[in-house]
Amino acid sequence: MITVEEHLSRIVGTVRRLPPIGMELLDAQGCVLAQDVTSEVALPGFRNSAMDGYAVHASDLEGAGEQSPVRLPVACDIAAGNTQALNLAPGQSMRIMTGAPMPDGADAVVPVERTDGGLALVVVSAAVSVGQHVRQAGEDVAVGDLVMRDGTRLEPRQIALLSAVGTGRVMVTPKPRVVVISTGDELIEPGTRPGFGQVVDSNSPMLTAAVRALDAIPSRVGCVRDDARTFLSTIESQLVHADVVITTGGVSMGAYDTVKEVLSRVGTMRFDKVAMQPGMPQGFGVLGEDEVPVFTLPGNPVSAMVSFEVFVAPALRLMAGRPQYETSLVTAVATHDWATPPGKVQYARVVLSRNGSGHPSGHPSGQPSGHTVAIAGLQGSHALGALAGANALAVIPADVTSVRAGDQVLCHPLGPITEAS
Amino acid sequence: MITVEEHLSRIVGTVRRLPPIGMELLDAQGCVLAQDVTSEVALPGFRNSAMDGYAVHASDLEGAGEQSPVRLPVACDIAAGNTQALNLAPGQSMRIMTGAPMPDGADAVVPVERTDGGLALVVVSAAVSVGQHVRQAGEDVAVGDLVMRDGTRLEPRQIALLSAVGTGRVMVTPKPRVVVISTGDELIEPGTRPGFGQVVDSNSPMLTAAVRALDAIPSRVGCVRDDARTFLSTIESQLVHADVVITTGGVSMGAYDTVKEVLSRVGTMRFDKVAMQPGMPQGFGVLGEDEVPVFTLPGNPVSAMVSFEVFVAPALRLMAGRPQYETSLVTAVATHDWATPPGKVQYARVVLSRNGSGHPSGHPSGQPSGHTVAIAGLQGSHALGALAGANALAVIPADVTSVRAGDQVLCHPLGPITEAS
Repeated sequence: MITVEEHLSRIVGTVRRLPPIGMELLDAQGCVLAQDVTSEVALPGFRNSAMDGYAVHASDLEGAGEQSPVRLPVACDIAAGNTQALNLAPGQSMRIMTGAPMPDGADAVVPVERTDGGLALVVVSAAVSVGQHVRQAGEDVAVGDLVMRDGTRLEPRQIALLSAVGTGRVMVTPKPRVVVISTGDELIEPGTRPGFGQVVDSNSPMLTAAVRALDAIPSRVGCVRDDARTFLSTIESQLVHADVVITTGGVSMGAYDTVKEVLSRVGTMRFDKVAMQPGMPQGFGVLGEDEVPVFTLPGNPVSAMVSFEVFVAPALRLMAGRPQYETSLVTAVATHDWATPPGKVQYARVVLSRNGSGHPSGHPSGQPSGHTVAIAGLQGSHALGALAGANALAVIPADVTSVRAGDQVLCHPLGPITEAS
Repeated sequence: MITVEEHLSRIVGTVRRLPPIGMELLDAQGCVLAQDVTSEVALPGFRNSAMDGYAVHASDLEGAGEQSPVRLPVACDIAAGNTQALNLAPGQSMRIMTGAPMPDGADAVVPVERTDGGLALVVVSAAVSVGQHVRQAGEDVAVGDLVMRDGTRLEPRQIALLSAVGTGRVMVTPKPRVVVISTGDELIEPGTRPGFGQVVDSNSPMLTAAVRALDAIPSRVGCVRDDARTFLSTIESQLVHADVVITTGGVSMGAYDTVKEVLSRVGTMRFDKVAMQPGMPQGFGVLGEDEVPVFTLPGNPVSAMVSFEVFVAPALRLMAGRPQYETSLVTAVATHDWATPPGKVQYARVVLSRNGSGHPSGHPSGQPSGHTVAIAGLQGSHALGALAGANALAVIPADVTSVRAGDQVLCHPLGPITEAS
């Protein structure tokens, strides 16, 4: 028996960030940048107005106020999108729109609200200081600035900045392509009605969705029989277009555990009992010329889901170049006692609730509120009903022999946290 | 001037959860169920073994132990996937695999680890109680059970459960289709190099990505000129396949604010100044026969992003049938002073960090750790560099006149929270 940490370190010591590829920026959402980006342009690209108003020489408005308005002739309008270089003569003004280029000579903008809005002659009832309401070229980003580092995930705001500095293509770490295979003679395809002894394959739909939810690219092979030749040829044919393969089933102590039987002989596959509940029988290694990481997860659906969260998700994040701290644990108070298996880390299916002054859109009344946690139904590793009703896994260390009401418990969220009423 | 709450209530009072559509379960990930699902099957569907071992009559093993093993003939093997109904005679055993159907008569399973693993005759060195290591039919889900309620979002575990109970098609609330249009004569398409007075359109890539990040379906129209006829015909042609339209630009006090000028005359559009910074000029209403909600956001990219988070995201969640509490605020301590605009809610671009004992994958050393918050660079509404470097918006109420180091500040996360070193 090995520990969760031992198995996980073997995995993260084996998988590697995927080699970079070039992509169109607008297609690269969710990918991680695999290059530093230095700006070849300045932002703003030209000196422009921060307000709708009038471009002026600040010195022309000295002493201007409600009681002592100043009148200036309006030479012309400058709209956003004006591409003409203009020059403002002393004693004159130009009506200017937000984002429009400042005329040479002008050194400030009077907001339209502080004027009469005149078209040929404007009456200004406020003084302005030099530079006021003017955006200087390069004040946000200068030419040559490092605007984004290798390792940054491309979210909406990053895509906006890279668009603005003129990036068309980017080198990124691609999203891992993950092949999902269920094994078991008892399995039938989703959407068909099971006879006696048959079970609908829920693992491959679940793990396909879990891969997609992690922003990786799933490919669902579906169910494969417990037959050594079929299984081996299926996995070999999938290796060519996979960055990762996940199988479920066939890795336990049974007489027909095909996955373990077939893969024990190839690649660097190793099968271990891991001190955890659920999820004890685990296999991991690399297969084929390209050394594709293969995870053989147990076949019980709850075990498969827990194994995915604990072992596969960190590997996929690492391969995608994403930081591991994206998922973090939440501390919560147990609302009742429950039993835990001695000597194994328990991943209990629980409902995690935020207490009291939750603040969905408003402001909280004081301190940050706490969390509570309660067991979500039947805890067997086949109990899909309870798994679907849970929103977190409570992670109870191997040396803890029981959880008591009031204990602080670490929870790994699986979905949005419920607001307690 | 109206408040943020007033503008938001008008929006959430107008938009409606979208009408349900039928979808294949495996395509419905991320959608919200628009029906209750009652199970027509039991889970497990048949009584089965929870372990690899031997199906027995518990009474045959009374008194069995390491010192007093019991020998039982092995009648046959039962693999998972066996569809034959079998019957276990008293005094006999059958070798059985995890998930395989229990033979009639048998009332317990002895794990293989407590036997010699015999094939024709097995030596058992432990007693078992009635029901031990047996999963009863229907113990997870009974026929007729309500397994999932209208309003549940279909995540991996929900898809697993619905697959298992035989659901093929589901009625769901579809993901909103969102048309994104940028307006402004100064704009040029991403990937082209701007001349003097020109600006690369970063709003439409940003908001397209933001729509996708919210799991809605974006359609990027790109840049439209500041021309009333062109803008009106563009928006009218988009209404037919949109659940929502978002525009940016053209809603301020300028002389060429086409969006405001054109849309003020149609539908229920209303243009307001909202007491917030950035994001003051806002328009909202419904247009066309289908009363499509239209958001006209300000054109400065920071204003557009903040407006999206504050007004559009809650509307899209509501239309998709999702709970509003999915995004919640984080309380953090300001590390320095900063200025806030009097009488307006400030949405400051900030870096939110988790303090001290962050626990990416391990266990924290005691109490849940706190958060700190610092301003992320230039706060102008054009400052894309600072926006891309921020991971949250600090939400400072209108009646707060300044933030001081040590103050508690509410933050609206935009991305993963940084681990402080």
